[in-house]
Amino acid sequence: LVINDPGFQHEDLNFLSRSERYDAAVKKSAWMILKLREYGISDPEEIFFYKSFVHRGRPEPLDLHLGMFLPTLLNQATPEQQDAFFMPAWNLKIIGTYAQTEMGHGTHIRGLETTATYDPSTQEFVLNSPTVTSIKWWPGGLGKTSNHAVVLAQLYTQGNCHGLHAFIVPIRCMTTHKPLPGVVVGDIGPKFGFDEVDNGFLKLENVRIPRENMLMKYAKVGKPDGTYKKPPSDKLTYSTMVFIRSMIVGESARSLSKACMIAIRYSAVRHQSELRAGEPEPQILDYQTQQYKLFPLLAAAYAFHFMGQYMIQMYHRISGDISQGDFSEMSELHALSAGLKAFTTWVATEGIEVCRMACGGHGYSRCSRLPDIYVTFAPTCTYEGENTVMMLQTARYLVKSYSQASAGQKLSGMVSYLNESQQHHLQAQPVTARSTVVNINDLTSLVEAYKLRAAKLVELAAKNLQHELQLKASKEDAWNNTSIELVRASDAHCHYVVVKTFAAKLTEVHDAAVHLALSTLALLYALHGMTENSGDFLQAGLLTVPQLSQVSQRVKELLSQVRPNAVALVDAFDYRDEILDSALGRYDGNVYESMFEWAQKSPLNQTEVHESYHKYLKPLQSKL
Amino acid sequence: LVINDPGFQHEDLNFLSRSERYDAAVKKSAWMILKLREYGISDPEEIFFYKSFVHRGRPEPLDLHLGMFLPTLLNQATPEQQDAFFMPAWNLKIIGTYAQTEMGHGTHIRGLETTATYDPSTQEFVLNSPTVTSIKWWPGGLGKTSNHAVVLAQLYTQGNCHGLHAFIVPIRCMTTHKPLPGVVVGDIGPKFGFDEVDNGFLKLENVRIPRENMLMKYAKVGKPDGTYKKPPSDKLTYSTMVFIRSMIVGESARSLSKACMIAIRYSAVRHQSELRAGEPEPQILDYQTQQYKLFPLLAAAYAFHFMGQYMIQMYHRISGDISQGDFSEMSELHALSAGLKAFTTWVATEGIEVCRMACGGHGYSRCSRLPDIYVTFAPTCTYEGENTVMMLQTARYLVKSYSQASAGQKLSGMVSYLNESQQHHLQAQPVTARSTVVNINDLTSLVEAYKLRAAKLVELAAKNLQHELQLKASKEDAWNNTSIELVRASDAHCHYVVVKTFAAKLTEVHDAAVHLALSTLALLYALHGMTENSGDFLQAGLLTVPQLSQVSQRVKELLSQVRPNAVALVDAFDYRDEILDSALGRYDGNVYESMFEWAQKSPLNQTEVHESYHKYLKPLQSKL
Repeated sequence: LVINDPGFQHEDLNFLSRSERYDAAVKKSAWMILKLREYGISDPEEIFFYKSFVHRGRPEPLDLHLGMFLPTLLNQATPEQQDAFFMPAWNLKIIGTYAQTEMGHGTHIRGLETTATYDPSTQEFVLNSPTVTSIKWWPGGLGKTSNHAVVLAQLYTQGNCHGLHAFIVPIRCMTTHKPLPGVVVGDIGPKFGFDEVDNGFLKLENVRIPRENMLMKYAKVGKPDGTYKKPPSDKLTYSTMVFIRSMIVGESARSLSKACMIAIRYSAVRHQSELRAGEPEPQILDYQTQQYKLFPLLAAAYAFHFMGQYMIQMYHRISGDISQGDFSEMSELHALSAGLKAFTTWVATEGIEVCRMACGGHGYSRCSRLPDIYVTFAPTCTYEGENTVMMLQTARYLVKSYSQASAGQKLSGMVSYLNESQQHHLQAQPVTARSTVVNINDLTSLVEAYKLRAAKLVELAAKNLQHELQLKASKEDAWNNTSIELVRASDAHCHYVVVKTFAAKLTEVHDAAVHLALSTLALLYALHGMTENSGDFLQAGLLTVPQLSQVSQRVKELLSQVRPNAVALVDAFDYRDEILDSALGRYDGNVYESMFEWAQKSPLNQTEVHESYHKYLKPLQSKL
Repeated sequence: LVINDPGFQHEDLNFLSRSERYDAAVKKSAWMILKLREYGISDPEEIFFYKSFVHRGRPEPLDLHLGMFLPTLLNQATPEQQDAFFMPAWNLKIIGTYAQTEMGHGTHIRGLETTATYDPSTQEFVLNSPTVTSIKWWPGGLGKTSNHAVVLAQLYTQGNCHGLHAFIVPIRCMTTHKPLPGVVVGDIGPKFGFDEVDNGFLKLENVRIPRENMLMKYAKVGKPDGTYKKPPSDKLTYSTMVFIRSMIVGESARSLSKACMIAIRYSAVRHQSELRAGEPEPQILDYQTQQYKLFPLLAAAYAFHFMGQYMIQMYHRISGDISQGDFSEMSELHALSAGLKAFTTWVATEGIEVCRMACGGHGYSRCSRLPDIYVTFAPTCTYEGENTVMMLQTARYLVKSYSQASAGQKLSGMVSYLNESQQHHLQAQPVTARSTVVNINDLTSLVEAYKLRAAKLVELAAKNLQHELQLKASKEDAWNNTSIELVRASDAHCHYVVVKTFAAKLTEVHDAAVHLALSTLALLYALHGMTENSGDFLQAGLLTVPQLSQVSQRVKELLSQVRPNAVALVDAFDYRDEILDSALGRYDGNVYESMFEWAQKSPLNQTEVHESYHKYLKPLQSKL
C-alpha cells in the first residue's frame, strides 16, 4: 500500500535542508491521513506500522497529534469535551501536540512551573510561563505544525495550588495559522536528528482559555466559582506510559535489527586484507573480531524481539486484569517496563554504533543509513523516562520485593527468585556454594546463573542501603549513596529476564533447523553476556576461573556456528530495501555501484565548480 | 589573533545547508592562509592550533593540502620536483589533496587497484581506475576544492608491477577549475559529520601525466625507457603515520575534555528532582549516578592529556634517534602509537556520548555542541588505521616480545614487564600467587596490578596462539582464531601504559593542592578501570572478591572527593566560550537564556507560518 503509492515516493532526505525535510514530511503526513481514511485503518498498531513505512522509520510532524493529542482526548476528556474537540481533531481542523516538558524540567514532572490560574470573574483559566525555565520545550509538532496543545500546568484556584492538570490551549489561529496573542511559539532549532520534526517551544503570557478547556474526566473545576474536585485515583494515566515503554523495547529490537542487517550484509560483500598469503581478500565477515562485534548484537536483536513481544502480551494481559479490577501485577509491569526500556535502549544505542564502525569508513556516509538509525534511535535513552531514572525505579521495586521476601512474604512473577535467595540465606547456604551447578552448554543452567547473579546484586544493593541507613540520618542520602549498586541490580535483573524470555521462546519453536539456529543465538547471547560481566559471575561464585576460560572458548565456537547462517538470520528481519534505505545493506549486494550513483546526486555536485572557488579561492591565488 | 579578527567571525553552522557550510569554511580558510602569511606562522604545531581556533575544532577543506599534500612534496619529491611544485602549492596555485583510499580498499593499502602504467613512447604515466571498487573515495578537499592530487597507484613499467607509488595528478584546470579530460571527480555526499569538508571521489580514465610527476625522491622511473629503481627502504613514510597517530591520542584528550566540560558545567546548573523532601531541587551533579558517569571520564580526559604529551615527546626523542641511525625503539613507538590511538579513541568516542546523554534531552540539541563533537571525533576510530586492526598490530609486537622474553632475551621499554612474567614463569610462581600485594589505596601498587594483568593477558593470547598452531595448519588461521584474545591483550597493555603514565606525571607536580586533586583523579581512573574489568583482575588472581568490594566503595568515596573540584577541573581545560560554542557549557552558566536566544535563530522560525501549512495542511483540512 505504501511503497507502490506515488504520493509517498521517496525523496532522499539527506540531500535536503532542514526546512525542506520538514516540508517533505508534512507533505507525506497529509497524504498519509487521507490514505488511512480511504483504507479505513484505525487500529493503533496498524497506524503505527503504516506510518513507519510512510516515513521509513523516521519520526514525523503529526506523531504527537496522532499518538498523544487524540488519545489524551479519548482518555481524559468528558463526553461534552469530546463532542467539542474530538471530531475537529480527528479531521485535522485542530492539530494538537502534548506540551509537558519545560526547558528546566524533564523527567521530574512535579517540578513543572507553568501555571493555570482560575479567574471566576470570567470563568477562564489564565496560563502563564512565569520563568525562562518554565517555557515548554521539546514537544514534537509544536514549533510550526500545531494549532492546539494539551498543556500540563500547575492548577491554581481559590487561592490553592492543586498540582498538575491538563488544559487544551489554542495556540495558533485556525484560519491564518498565526500565533495567538500572548503565545510565543516556535521551533527549538536543529538537533542531532529528528530533522523532520518541529520540536517546539511555547511561552504563555496571560493566555486565557474557557473553564471547559481543562480536561475534566477525572479532576474537575466543575463550578463557576472554581471549586476543585480531586480525581478518584492518581494512577489512571499510568497505563499509557507503560504501553509506550513496552513498545520501545520492540523498537530497540527493530533498530538494532536494521543496523545488524546493514553491517552483516555489508561484511559479506566487503573483502579486505589477506588471511592466507596469495589467496583473494576474504569477506570481512570471516574475521573473528568482526564476528565478535556483530554476532552478539545479532543475538541481542533476536532476544529483544522476543522480549518486545512478551512485554506487549504482558501489557494486554495485565490491562485486561486491571479493567477487571485486579491491580496485583501492575507494579511488576511498571517496574519491568521501566527497566527493560532502559536496558534494551542502552544496548541497542551502543550496538548501532558498533555496527556502524564495523562498516569502516563507509559506515560514516549517510548512504549507509547507519548515522540516521543512530540519531533517530538514541533519544529513546532519554525520552519517556531517562534511563538511569528508569533503572532506579525498577531498583525500588526490587529492593521492596527483597524486603518483602526477607519478611517471609511469598513473591510471584519475575522477582520470585528473591524468595529462593532468602531461603538459601535462611539455610545459611551462601550463593557461592552453588557454583558448580552451572553447565555452560545448557541454556536452562545459564538462565539459573543469570537469576542467581541478579539475586546476588539485589541483595548487595539492599544491604548497602541498610548499611547506609545505619550510618546516615536521611533515607534519601542512603538511596543516593547506593544508586550505583541499585542500577547494577536492575541491570542484572533485566538481563536475567531477557535471557529467560529467549530460552522460553525456544520451547515454542518446533522446526528443528530454526530451533537449532535460534538456540545457537540464545547460547551466544547468554555466554557473551557472561564474558562481558565476568566479574559479577566470579564474584558471586557462579563461575570458576577455569569455567570462565571455557565460556570464552565456547563463545568462539558459537561465532563459527552462526557464521554460515548470519546473512539468512538478518534477511529474516525482512526489511525491504525501500525501508532499510542503505547502500551498504542492499539485498542484492551491489554496494559500490549504489554508493557511486548516490554520491553523484549530492547537492555539491549540482555545479561543476562551486561558487566558493570564484568567491574565495581564485581571489586568494591572486593575492599570494 | 583569531577571536578578535572580523574575518573569522563565527556564523552558526547549525543553521546553514551543507553547501553553505562548505562555502563558509572555504571563506575562512582562504582568510586563514593570508593571516598565517601575515603573521609568519609556519611551525606545524602552531598552524594546527591556529587552524583549530579558526574552525572551532572542525575539519576544513584545506586540511589535506596543508597536512598531507605539502608535507608529501617535502618528504618524497626530488629537488627538481620541489622547484616545479612546491612554491605553486605554497601559494595555493596548486591546491592539492592526498588520494589513497578507494571505494573497495581502506586499511589494507596493498589492495589498492588504481594503476599507473608507464608509456615510454610519450614518457608519460597513464592512470586508470579499472573497476568501480578502485574509484578513489574519501580524500578531504578532493570533491570541489583541489586542482591536484597525490594519487597512490600500482606502478606498471616494462611489463612488471612494482607496487604502490605516489603520483602528482592534475585533476582540475588551473584557470577554470573544471575537471580535466578523463577525470571524473566530485563530492561523495553527506556524512554523519564533516559537513564543511568536500570528501571526494576520483575516477581516472586514461589520464596521462609526465614521467616527472611520479614522486621520485626514493623509488624512480628515472630513464625514458621506463627502467624502475627500488627505494632504499620501505619504512621511510612510517614516521608521518606514527606522528599522526600520536597526535590523535592528544585529540582524544581534547575532545573528551570538551565533552566533560559541557556536561559537568551543565550538571552544576541543572537542578532536578528531590533528594530531600521539601528542599529545593539539587544540582544534578550531586547525584551519585551522574558523578559515576562523568568523573571517571574526567579522569580519563586528564589521563589522555598526559598520555598525548608523552607520545609526542617520545615521538620527537625517537625521531631524533632515528635521524642518528638508531632504529632500536622504532617498533615500540609504532606499536604503542597504534594501540594507544585505538584505546584512547574508543574510550573518548563512547565517553562523548555518555556526556551527551548525561545532559538529558538538551544534550540532543545542536546548541549543546555535543552532537557536533561526537560526529567530528568518532571517525578517529576508523581513519589513520581502523582501531581493531591497530590493536592487532600492537598485539603482534606484544606476542613477538613475549616470544623473545621466553627465549631469554632481555626486553626494554614498556614491554619489559614480559621479562618479569617469564622469570616468574620459570620459577613456577603463578601470577595468582601475587594477589595479596595490591594495595588499592596506593597508585604504585595499582600500576603493578595493571602491569600483571597485561602480562597475564599477553601470556593467555600467546598460549592460545601456540595452541591453535598445534591444532591447525596455517598460522593465519591460528592468528584469526586468537584475535579476540589478542585485542584484549593490547587493550590491557595500553591501559597499563596510561595508568603508569598518569602516575609518573604526578611526580612532576609540586603544588600540593594540585597534586592532591590530580592524585584523586589518577586513583579514580585506576580503580574505576578495575571495576570495569573486574573479571580480568579476579581471573588473574590480582584481586580477591572482598578487595573488589573495597574497590567499589573506594570509587564512591573518590567521586565525593572529586565533586567540590569538578567544575574547576574542567575550567582548567581553558576552552573559551567562543571555541567550546555550547549553550549548555557556558562559563557564566546562563544556559536557558542562551538556548532560548539560539532557538529563535532557527531557520524554521524565519517565517511565522511555514509554507507547508499552505501547501499541505490547509488543503487537507478542506478534504476531511
